[in-house]
Amino acid sequence: MTSNPADCAATDRACAEQQDAADPLAGFRDRFVSSPEALIYLDGNSLGPLAKATRQRVLEVVDREWGEGLVRSWNDWVELPTAVGDLLGEHLAGAAPGQIAVCDSTTVNLYKLAHAALNARPGRDVLITDDDNFPTDRYVLAGVARERGAELRLIHTDIDQGISTGELAGALDDRVALVSLSHVAYRSGALADMAAITAQVHEAGALMLWDLCHAIGAVPVSLDAAGADLAVGCTYKYLNAGPGSPAFLYVRRELQDQLQQPVWGWFGQADQFAMGPGYEPAAGIGKFLTGTPNIIGTAAVQEGTTLLAEAGMDRLRAKSTGLTSLLIALAEEWLAPLGFTVATPRDPARRGAHVSLAHPDAHQISQALIREGVVPDYRTPDRLRLGPAPLTSHFVEVYDALALIREVVTSGAHRGYPREIARVT
Amino acid sequence: MTSNPADCAATDRACAEQQDAADPLAGFRDRFVSSPEALIYLDGNSLGPLAKATRQRVLEVVDREWGEGLVRSWNDWVELPTAVGDLLGEHLAGAAPGQIAVCDSTTVNLYKLAHAALNARPGRDVLITDDDNFPTDRYVLAGVARERGAELRLIHTDIDQGISTGELAGALDDRVALVSLSHVAYRSGALADMAAITAQVHEAGALMLWDLCHAIGAVPVSLDAAGADLAVGCTYKYLNAGPGSPAFLYVRRELQDQLQQPVWGWFGQADQFAMGPGYEPAAGIGKFLTGTPNIIGTAAVQEGTTLLAEAGMDRLRAKSTGLTSLLIALAEEWLAPLGFTVATPRDPARRGAHVSLAHPDAHQISQALIREGVVPDYRTPDRLRLGPAPLTSHFVEVYDALALIREVVTSGAHRGYPREIARVT
Repeated sequence: MTSNPADCAATDRACAEQQDAADPLAGFRDRFVSSPEALIYLDGNSLGPLAKATRQRVLEVVDREWGEGLVRSWNDWVELPTAVGDLLGEHLAGAAPGQIAVCDSTTVNLYKLAHAALNARPGRDVLITDDDNFPTDRYVLAGVARERGAELRLIHTDIDQGISTGELAGALDDRVALVSLSHVAYRSGALADMAAITAQVHEAGALMLWDLCHAIGAVPVSLDAAGADLAVGCTYKYLNAGPGSPAFLYVRRELQDQLQQPVWGWFGQADQFAMGPGYEPAAGIGKFLTGTPNIIGTAAVQEGTTLLAEAGMDRLRAKSTGLTSLLIALAEEWLAPLGFTVATPRDPARRGAHVSLAHPDAHQISQALIREGVVPDYRTPDRLRLGPAPLTSHFVEVYDALALIREVVTSGAHRGYPREIARVT
Repeated sequence: MTSNPADCAATDRACAEQQDAADPLAGFRDRFVSSPEALIYLDGNSLGPLAKATRQRVLEVVDREWGEGLVRSWNDWVELPTAVGDLLGEHLAGAAPGQIAVCDSTTVNLYKLAHAALNARPGRDVLITDDDNFPTDRYVLAGVARERGAELRLIHTDIDQGISTGELAGALDDRVALVSLSHVAYRSGALADMAAITAQVHEAGALMLWDLCHAIGAVPVSLDAAGADLAVGCTYKYLNAGPGSPAFLYVRRELQDQLQQPVWGWFGQADQFAMGPGYEPAAGIGKFLTGTPNIIGTAAVQEGTTLLAEAGMDRLRAKSTGLTSLLIALAEEWLAPLGFTVATPRDPARRGAHVSLAHPDAHQISQALIREGVVPDYRTPDRLRLGPAPLTSHFVEVYDALALIREVVTSGAHRGYPREIARVT
């Protein structure tokens, strides 16, 4: 399904206007705070915008729960990491209750689960990821491998097309304990076939961990149905939970008893407030918690998840493929002649919600666009990454952003900006 | 120095009123939001109250930096963990810049530093802590010991009087890599002699890690002067940064190059946004960061630290010993006849800012007090923990709270509450 009406051309702005008029999710934009300038924000895949309900909820937690309730509010807060995990599982991750907890950062969760996977596969000493996985994934796994005397095998990935299942097949053997891949690639937006790859990994007797950072809230995810063992993900992108909001982790129910994670903290302890002499892991997903959870952030995850649930993952996905299809059509029509190439799979079924365009001056172009009120982001080596968020972006914004890129590059306005990478965006 | 005027008796309420009138910090109370009920809050050592400036700052981060600035704000946020660490070091922890970072939870930080210590002392395979250290400290170290094939030695501690240096001396030998102790004991409030114990540990060739959770903002801390190697602490108690706000860690500058922590995340990477192929730890304290930091929480730590800095650690300490001295005097006068014993060192120089009272019905008494508008907390096995925060508590509140405890226990009003521990407070 695509939202693109058949009877108009991508290069006609009226066509984008028609798509907005027909968009059942168009009203969600008003439920987010707007910037003082007329910003076209195409970086929700890096930091999602602020929903009015989330702002209200943060104030509620701060004023009423913390300010008035004080320490007494812990009686409710203590359940929040797993309650919000269940909500996220139900609406966005395809996970039955009791398998997701909101806690720590993606980095720390990946670390915990990679160790747990090695513990669960004694005699196996190889971890696999791909050479274009997000940096923190590669670094964490390299650190775990070094600490445990294991080997990290990097399979090669085409940075435009995503994970190479052929390379993966060649790397799997009976030494492999864990394969860890991103469901949506951070650079290209390529969408991996979760069920097929998980089955492939299981055949080799290894566990499969999915990083959902660029997928959750952007594409339908079905962890249980795909047979996934483990997953991690962040909540500050499409879940709109704010800068540095807590991440989440998923551990398939049948594995929870077998797995032992290495960070033995008091929030992972059975009968936590008995404060007993020895560590006894909590039953279920609770054993994967560590220290005191970030409550304001977890409440924001709850609000963000609730908004996405109301929109519905199927409608979000349909709109998202419409947005990225328009983006790619305009890029091919307008930008290919200016030296851009589309560095994202052209088949909508094979991509997530963001699109990368390769251009030698991508970093300078990115800065020029920000100055002109369009926020993309830049990714090495030469990628302009554009992430229209299905919950908040309009089709005309994609149209206008692509028109601006054309204008900037045609006029050479980007050439005045530094080539060096000195900024986050 | 004590704020207690010599010319009045503790049991005279007018005496407490005089102390409040003479208290140079009394005005700080109005800079915090007040509860709708007239609450006497004696649990700032568990979750500190909400400062108006912190509320304002959270709103500013949410509305302006996140809501309007969006991803562009990361250009400033990226420095926040170490900038706030420096502020905390200058005003509260006695640490020169470049040695403290605000990040993760106390649990995760302790885990990282315990591993780093073992890495820095090859050939040594013993960790030491005390058997009454806070649960997460004992659990984390037990987990690290198990993972690394090391031994965890638990030295015995008198749960009223704190760390036994005699027992410590007996446990130190050339197998010990790390000693990890709390500066202020979570149960008794006993204050350890940081400089003397650190020197004792160094003589044995081991590294010393201090847990400052119950100390930071409550007692003057001089990490550099004491020669401490490592420290961790939380910010949701006396620093008033909110439920689950990020913790901090300290690594002495001269050790930073030698130490390698195990969680290799992208925020600990040199030249983070180059996203290079291999992990190269950042120079300095930055290498101890892991994943994306919690920005709202870190901003709240900044506000909390700024308020304490304005009050001044010396004035806070002087007031604190006055508050706990009044508390102990009243406990001995009024509560000892009712079966209470003071389970905290009587020498003000040997205790932090909270006092524990032992009573067989402590858990029931705690519940009765909360119902009556006085919030203490309960700690196993039989401790009523009272933490008047020097920044916000008044002397008359200590007086009125102790009077209420006398009244509750005399009348037997607590006997209607459950004996089982089912709640956080």
